[in-house]
Amino acid sequence: MNGARALLATLVGGGVDVCFANPGTSEMHFVGALDAVPEMRAVLTLFEGVATGAADGYARVTGRPATTLLHLGPGLGNGLANLHNARRARTPVVNIVGDHATYHARFDAPLQSDIASLARPVSGWYRVTARADDVGADAADALAAAYGPPGCVATLVLPADSSWSESAVGPCAPHPQGGAPCVPAETIEGVAKALRSGERAALLLGGTALRGRGLRAASRVSAATGATLLGETFPANLERGAGIPAVERLAYLGEMAQAQLDGVHHLVLVDATSPVSFFAYPGKPSDLVPAGCAVHTLVRAGEDAPGALEALAEAVGAGRDGAAPAPEGRPARPQGPLSAQSLAAAIGATLPEGAIVVDEGNTSGLFIAGATAGAPPHDWLTLTGGAIGIGLPAATGAGVAAPDRPVLCVQADGSAMYTLQALWTQAREGLHVTTVVLANRSYAILNMELQRVGADAGGPRARRLLDLTEPDLDFVALARGMGVPGRRVETAEGCWPLWRRASPSPALHSSRSL
Amino acid sequence: MNGARALLATLVGGGVDVCFANPGTSEMHFVGALDAVPEMRAVLTLFEGVATGAADGYARVTGRPATTLLHLGPGLGNGLANLHNARRARTPVVNIVGDHATYHARFDAPLQSDIASLARPVSGWYRVTARADDVGADAADALAAAYGPPGCVATLVLPADSSWSESAVGPCAPHPQGGAPCVPAETIEGVAKALRSGERAALLLGGTALRGRGLRAASRVSAATGATLLGETFPANLERGAGIPAVERLAYLGEMAQAQLDGVHHLVLVDATSPVSFFAYPGKPSDLVPAGCAVHTLVRAGEDAPGALEALAEAVGAGRDGAAPAPEGRPARPQGPLSAQSLAAAIGATLPEGAIVVDEGNTSGLFIAGATAGAPPHDWLTLTGGAIGIGLPAATGAGVAAPDRPVLCVQADGSAMYTLQALWTQAREGLHVTTVVLANRSYAILNMELQRVGADAGGPRARRLLDLTEPDLDFVALARGMGVPGRRVETAEGCWPLWRRASPSPALHSSRSL
Repeated sequence: MNGARALLATLVGGGVDVCFANPGTSEMHFVGALDAVPEMRAVLTLFEGVATGAADGYARVTGRPATTLLHLGPGLGNGLANLHNARRARTPVVNIVGDHATYHARFDAPLQSDIASLARPVSGWYRVTARADDVGADAADALAAAYGPPGCVATLVLPADSSWSESAVGPCAPHPQGGAPCVPAETIEGVAKALRSGERAALLLGGTALRGRGLRAASRVSAATGATLLGETFPANLERGAGIPAVERLAYLGEMAQAQLDGVHHLVLVDATSPVSFFAYPGKPSDLVPAGCAVHTLVRAGEDAPGALEALAEAVGAGRDGAAPAPEGRPARPQGPLSAQSLAAAIGATLPEGAIVVDEGNTSGLFIAGATAGAPPHDWLTLTGGAIGIGLPAATGAGVAAPDRPVLCVQADGSAMYTLQALWTQAREGLHVTTVVLANRSYAILNMELQRVGADAGGPRARRLLDLTEPDLDFVALARGMGVPGRRVETAEGCWPLWRRASPSPALHSSRSL
Repeated sequence: MNGARALLATLVGGGVDVCFANPGTSEMHFVGALDAVPEMRAVLTLFEGVATGAADGYARVTGRPATTLLHLGPGLGNGLANLHNARRARTPVVNIVGDHATYHARFDAPLQSDIASLARPVSGWYRVTARADDVGADAADALAAAYGPPGCVATLVLPADSSWSESAVGPCAPHPQGGAPCVPAETIEGVAKALRSGERAALLLGGTALRGRGLRAASRVSAATGATLLGETFPANLERGAGIPAVERLAYLGEMAQAQLDGVHHLVLVDATSPVSFFAYPGKPSDLVPAGCAVHTLVRAGEDAPGALEALAEAVGAGRDGAAPAPEGRPARPQGPLSAQSLAAAIGATLPEGAIVVDEGNTSGLFIAGATAGAPPHDWLTLTGGAIGIGLPAATGAGVAAPDRPVLCVQADGSAMYTLQALWTQAREGLHVTTVVLANRSYAILNMELQRVGADAGGPRARRLLDLTEPDLDFVALARGMGVPGRRVETAEGCWPLWRRASPSPALHSSRSL
C-alpha cells in the first residue's frame, strides 16, 4: 500500500475515523485512498477554517480527535484561527497538511512556503514525514501527541511523495494511551490546608474540571468549606443545566471579574490559568488576582482534574452531597417584541435535553446562559481563544460527533461572516444543527471596546468601521444559498419553533435587528 | 498625538491612503484616529482574507501599497493565504497587525500567539514597534520596504500601547524612493550575444516586464531576433488586448509548458523565475527547462525590466517597430446554450476598454483569455501564488483603486466560496465590479489532478470530496444576502448584458452548471 493508505489505516486503527477536509493536488493520494479505507468518514468543507473549527467541535464533544486535511501553507493559513481556538481549548486535533513532494521543494514552486513557521504557533507537536515507510509510525506519534493528556493540535506534514510512494511498513498500531497523571498528595494537602484556613477561597475550574464528575466533586468541596465555585471565562465544554452543580463563569470584562474575585484570599486553579484581562486597557490591570490573594495550582493541564477534586473533597472532609445543584426551571415562553432578552428566554424555554450549545453569541448572546441555567442538562462550548468564527464550524463538528443530539449554534452576526461556509457542510451531511443568528448589525463589542480603551474617538468614520449596515446582511438568503432553510424571526413567539422540523436537519433563524 | 495618529499621518504622507480593515479591540486607537486623519480611507471587510486580497489587487492596479488592519495572530492568520499570493506577485503591501500592549504579552491572554512566526513566511520586512515614539519612523521604514523595488509585504506589528501612548516624535516623512536599479551592461550584452547566435531563443517575461513599455521593447527584440515571447503562467498584472504586443503565457500543465519550451536553446528570464512544474507528479519532471537549454537571467526581481528590454533591443539592433501586436477583433456575440466556450465568447464580445480583469476562473475560465485577446486594451490579474480565494477580494481592491474603470471578476465557484464576503464590501463601497461565477459544481481541477498524480482512485468516496453538489450553491441568493444584485445566466445571449446597469455598482452573474 502507499503512504496515504498507511496513514488512513493508522488513523482508523487509533480511533480517528472522521476527516474534515479541503484538499488540493498534493492531497490527491489521501483522497484517492478513501475508498480503500471506508471506516474513515471524509467530510468536505468549503474553507479550511470550517475544517479546523469542525475538528475542534468534534473532539470537544467526543474526546477523540478528528483529522483535518489541508492544502500546503495557504490551506493551513486559512485554518489557523480555529486551530488557535483549539490550542486554547487543549482540543486533540490531528492536523494533516499536504505538501509538495520532498524533491520538489527546492524549486520554490508558487505554493511553496514555510509551513513549519506557520504551524508551530498552534501546534503542540509537529513533524514532516519524509518517507512513505515512516508514515504509519509518524501518524501513530501524532495521534498519541494529540490525545495527550493534555490534548493538543498535532500537525503532520505529508509531502506528496510520502503519500504516493509504496510503504514497505504499512500502518502502525496506536501507542497505548496513558491516563491523566494524578496530582501529588502534598499538592492536595496544601490546597486543603488553605481551604480549611477559614479565609475566603474560590476554586477556578477549567478544562476537564467542568464536566459532571469534576463539578460534583468541586461542589462537595464548596459545601464543606464555603469556597466559591468559579468557572473559567471561556470553557471548552461545560456541562450544565438542572441538577448539575453550577459554576459562575468569570466575566469577560476585567472590572466585573475583579468584582467576582474581590475579597478572595485563596484562589485555587483547577485546570485553569490565573485570571488575566482579555485585553490590556490604559490604566487598568492585566493581572486580575486581588492584591494579597494566594494563588494555588491544584491541577495543571493534563493532570487528572476530577480525581484531584475528589481527593480534595476527602481531604477537607466533605460529605457525599455537594452544594445545591442548579434548580430545574425554565423561563416562560416569551411573547411580544424580539430583544436579546426575549430571545434568550425563548431559548431557555425550549432547549431540548442533551443539547449541545455552541455559544458565539458575543454581546447579544449575554442573556442566554442565564436563561438556560435551569434547562435540562446540556453542554456548552465557547470561543476559547478569542479568534472569532468558531461557532458555525464547531457546531458542524458537534453535529457530526453526536448525530442523535440537537446542536444549537448561538451565533453573532459579525462573527458568523468569518466561516459561514459551514452551513453548506451542515446541509450536505444532513446535520441536526439549529443556528440562531443574533443580528445586531454591528461589531457591538467593539463599540464598547472603543470606549473602554479610552480612544478619544467615536467619530463617524470610526463608527462606520464597526457597523454592519449599508447594506444589511440577509442571513436567510445566505443560508438558502448554501442549502440551509432559513427564517427571519421578528417576535419572541417566533422563536418557539426553533427545533420544529420533520427530521433532523440544519436550519437557520436570523433575528430581526436587535 | 498618540502613536496611532502618528502612524496614520506617516502613511498618508507616504502616499498610502487606503486601509482595508478588519479591526478588533487592540486596533481601536487606530480606528479612533481615523476621524483625525480624513485623508485615510478605511474600507471595512468582513474577513481578513478579503482585506489582504483587496490590498493586493489595489496595489497591482495603482503600484502604490494599501495598508491592511488585522487583529493579532488570528486576524493575520485569516489573511495569510492572500498575503502569500501578494508575496508571489511582489505586491507592495503595508500589513498592520495590532497586538496586545507590550506589558500584557507575558500574561498569555487568550489571543496571545507567536505573530512573528506567522508573519515571516509572507513578509519581506517585519518589525514590532515597541514605543509610540518609534511609530512614525517604523512606518516610514515599512513603507520604504513595501515599495521596494521589488515590492513586498511589510508587516508592522503595533502593540496597543504603542498605539495609544503619546508620541513625542509624531509622524515621519517618507524615505526618498529609489528607482529600480539598472541591469549591468555586460548582462545585456551577454543576452544579446545569445540571441544573435541564431539558436532558438525565448524571452520569458514576468512581473514588471508585462506592462506596455516592457512588452513593446520585448516585441522589438523578438522582431529583430526571432525570439519567442512567453509570459509567466500567473502574472500579477498583464497589459493586453488589441494593439499591445501579445505574449503566450506558459501553460499551467507541465506537459504543455514543456511543449512550449521544446527546442529552445536560450531561455532569457526577464523578471521571471525559471519554469518549474506547479506541483510534482510521479515520474514527471519538476524542472521544465529542456535539456541543453541555457537559462540567462536578464532581469532579477526589482531591477528595471523595461529599461533592460529597451537596452537589449538596442544591443540586438532592433528597429523601432516590434512584431505585429495583437490584432483588434472580438468574437461574435454568441447565442444558444451556455458553455465555458460561449461564455468566454460573450465576455470577449463585450469587454469594455480599460477593463481590469481579475481571473480566478480556473478550469472553466480557460477559454476567456483567448476570447479577449483582441478586445480593447485591458489589464489581467491572476492568482500568482496558487492560494485560491483571491478573485473577489482582488477585484474589490481594484474597484477601490480605479473607480472610473470597469472591473470584471471571473470567478470559479469553488474558489469563490473562500472569500465570498468581499461582495458585501463591494456593495458598501459602491464599486464598479462585475462578478461572473463559473459554476461547474466541482473542484474540477482536482478531478483532473486526481488522474494526473496517478492516484488509483476515482471511487465514489473520493469523487464526492471533489464535488460541489448536494446541495448546489445558489450564488444569486448568496450575493443578494450581501447586498449585491445577482442573476443566473442560462444562455449565451444571457451573458450580453453583463455591464448593463444605471450607474457603476457591483453585480453578480452566476452561470448555469457548466
